[in-house]
Amino acid sequence: MDASEFRRRGKEMVDYVADYMEGIEGRQVYPDVEPGYLRPLIPTTAPQEPDTFEDIINDVEKIIMPGVTHWHSPYFFAYFPTASSYPSMLADMLCGAIGCIGFSWAASPACTELETVMMDWLGKMLQLPEAFLAGNAGEGGGVIQGSASEATLVALLAARTKVTRRLQAASPGLTQAAIMEKLVAYSSDQAHSSVERAGLIGGVKLKAIPSDGKFAMRASALQEALERDKAAGLIPFFVVATLGTTSCCSFDNLLEVGPICIKEDVWLHIDAAYAGSAFICPEFRPLLNGVEFADSFNFNPHKWLLVNFDCSAMWVKKRTDLTGAFKLDPVYLKHSHQDSGLITDYRHWQLPLGRRFRSLKMWFVFRMYGIKGLQAYIRKHVQLSHEFESLVQQDPRFEICAEVTLGLVCFRLKGSNKLTKALLERINNAKKIHLVPCHLRDKFVLRFAICSRTVESAHVQLAWEHIRGLATELLKAEKE
Amino acid sequence: MDASEFRRRGKEMVDYVADYMEGIEGRQVYPDVEPGYLRPLIPTTAPQEPDTFEDIINDVEKIIMPGVTHWHSPYFFAYFPTASSYPSMLADMLCGAIGCIGFSWAASPACTELETVMMDWLGKMLQLPEAFLAGNAGEGGGVIQGSASEATLVALLAARTKVTRRLQAASPGLTQAAIMEKLVAYSSDQAHSSVERAGLIGGVKLKAIPSDGKFAMRASALQEALERDKAAGLIPFFVVATLGTTSCCSFDNLLEVGPICIKEDVWLHIDAAYAGSAFICPEFRPLLNGVEFADSFNFNPHKWLLVNFDCSAMWVKKRTDLTGAFKLDPVYLKHSHQDSGLITDYRHWQLPLGRRFRSLKMWFVFRMYGIKGLQAYIRKHVQLSHEFESLVQQDPRFEICAEVTLGLVCFRLKGSNKLTKALLERINNAKKIHLVPCHLRDKFVLRFAICSRTVESAHVQLAWEHIRGLATELLKAEKE
Repeated sequence: MDASEFRRRGKEMVDYVADYMEGIEGRQVYPDVEPGYLRPLIPTTAPQEPDTFEDIINDVEKIIMPGVTHWHSPYFFAYFPTASSYPSMLADMLCGAIGCIGFSWAASPACTELETVMMDWLGKMLQLPEAFLAGNAGEGGGVIQGSASEATLVALLAARTKVTRRLQAASPGLTQAAIMEKLVAYSSDQAHSSVERAGLIGGVKLKAIPSDGKFAMRASALQEALERDKAAGLIPFFVVATLGTTSCCSFDNLLEVGPICIKEDVWLHIDAAYAGSAFICPEFRPLLNGVEFADSFNFNPHKWLLVNFDCSAMWVKKRTDLTGAFKLDPVYLKHSHQDSGLITDYRHWQLPLGRRFRSLKMWFVFRMYGIKGLQAYIRKHVQLSHEFESLVQQDPRFEICAEVTLGLVCFRLKGSNKLTKALLERINNAKKIHLVPCHLRDKFVLRFAICSRTVESAHVQLAWEHIRGLATELLKAEKE
Repeated sequence: MDASEFRRRGKEMVDYVADYMEGIEGRQVYPDVEPGYLRPLIPTTAPQEPDTFEDIINDVEKIIMPGVTHWHSPYFFAYFPTASSYPSMLADMLCGAIGCIGFSWAASPACTELETVMMDWLGKMLQLPEAFLAGNAGEGGGVIQGSASEATLVALLAARTKVTRRLQAASPGLTQAAIMEKLVAYSSDQAHSSVERAGLIGGVKLKAIPSDGKFAMRASALQEALERDKAAGLIPFFVVATLGTTSCCSFDNLLEVGPICIKEDVWLHIDAAYAGSAFICPEFRPLLNGVEFADSFNFNPHKWLLVNFDCSAMWVKKRTDLTGAFKLDPVYLKHSHQDSGLITDYRHWQLPLGRRFRSLKMWFVFRMYGIKGLQAYIRKHVQLSHEFESLVQQDPRFEICAEVTLGLVCFRLKGSNKLTKALLERINNAKKIHLVPCHLRDKFVLRFAICSRTVESAHVQLAWEHIRGLATELLKAEKE
């Protein structure tokens, strides 16, 4: 395919994409296919001779679309949102064309420098403390990671290196293994599974702190665990506080947890993967109070800030904490500017070496929406979740299971878990809307997350009518 | 921006991309900017009100392009290639529109199933042993990782878990820390820095095996290290063999190293990040002989197989080795099919949770080029590197520093390292072509890598004339 055919096919693809987005409401949100559906539809080997573009685009509708879960359908209320916006798609096209691999400043200066400035822009939108910004001569700064999982792991590894060096400086005879055996990380029992996984990968213990009645980590439970572990000769070194947990969007109490971490000299990482986007609105910013106590902070613009996946924003107060944990400099990656202090080689901030020009997406989205446009988008989603909450509250058969703060509503049928499980089964079988469950303590709960960029009050109302109708059928069937 | 504006702007962007690719030869391959160039060109905060698309696209030429290293210029001979093709860009547009996050089968069945089948297609193109393919009921299979660094780390972590479980099964009292303290991983002294990094992250020792005169890891050196470490009470558990090292594209001797790994019950991971693409050509496939001894194999179609970054292909013989190392199942990610055995939840195969629909790129590229088209592409690059090699050989002032097997030529001016360093400085100052150096033992060497999809004999000839001219100037200046 040459440039002139790309001009033609690219424009056809733009129309296909626009048609898909405009028509998505008409597609069944969750597919009918069974596991293994695709293999029989496709040849067993790649073709020797080229297929035509027509063949392929026809196969997209025949083979791919029937197996797609439509995350951007206004009837998709599962998991958390994943971002989708036209400016972001345009930026991704440009990113694909430039196609640079930005592992060092020299590998493509624009790729590194735009990222640093965009992370400052975003940090200012969130009113992050100055210490997290790169500015012209800051010790901190931001980096785009691929996912919150990676950000948590990177923070844990940096904290592990830092505490190991500190202990070895004090007791030069200590081996790394002897230290690692005693290291303990902490998070709330509501933290995302990726935190547990970071502990597994890093080879350190991770302890779950029991959350309170509002599913928040509080000072007393954390302090108790720290005292117990220190008394047992263990070394607390890392705490993950979650703002907006996956199960129910609860918030750990940063203003309590933060000072403990300072006092105990423990690295505090904040995982605000979903909720972080909301902090660009002044009315939600208080949820982030206490961030000043943290060493690292992360959230995913690719969830709720209209920047398509992947774009996970991470800031640290001391960039040398990250680079110190990862820095290795083979000759083929050295360049003449690297020790100037002015430049950033992002390969030392992350797990992989390669990285795309992802800051273009932030630049396009922030500029084409403006801060006001982004705030309006967040507010609309929060308003829709409160609308759904009040619908649930009006039906005495249902209960709300956790405080609704942002775009997630946790609810269930009053009574046994079996009942709500049966309701979920009916919802999933009908495939008119899509949502997923969670456990809150011993309760089986449905999560209704406002996800799609195009979801409106009418969709929420229809979804609720649908759920209510299925509940009525279910309760009738139960009685019979 | 609504769908109708996207139709318009998307088509303008398609033309911008096509113009960029068609005109790339006219752009200076390496930028003139100094560190910190970008910040003063951009406002200090995001705008409150939206900017227009015209503003942004104008700024791309004014602010971004002057700082871009043009990786797809036919005068770019640095690092290794990073893939760029039109079919891949088209697929990426579709991927952005579908915008699903494929962490589980249910999250978007097509995303998971196409990946499994594409990895089988690619495995067959490489004539990988059957054991690496998923097929209908295989124990192995492939997964797309973000980078070779991640693949190496994932393999190391899986091997660490496997050996730990085996040792704990034999001696139930052994702690993980006691085991980790004794674990040793090995790679050649020519292995990529990401291997050392994987060891750092995984908290295990990594030892460099001295390579032979052709920069290859051989049986004797590996066996010697294993014996010495076992005698010291250490536990060898993981070997990385590199096919196509970054410095000089040398090949570890798989047929020697493989049987040792089998005999010692050590996990063998093969990193063929760059060279792997060449194995689709029968004449280069013998370089992969011995892959049957490996537990995991990885290469990057996003380097040399025309699939845009990121797409790092990894296969394992036993998928449970990976999933066993990472599996955590919170309720919100469970789905009704997950224990059926038929399905794959790729989140258990990788470090992050989220993942894009990257197999679309493979599908588009494999179909629109056909196997023959891909083979022709590889062969052309190899032929161009031999052409450059013979040009170097014709000039008695220069020497070739390592065997040229694929698309990389390592060369230098005969004499002191200072001389070749001075030549590199002249090349980099002139900015007509771009390449990077490496060390081979005590020699400072220039790497000439055939990179661009559009590079032709004429570009290679021009590059050589340019280098020769600079060398003549340099040698003249040295004499004066």
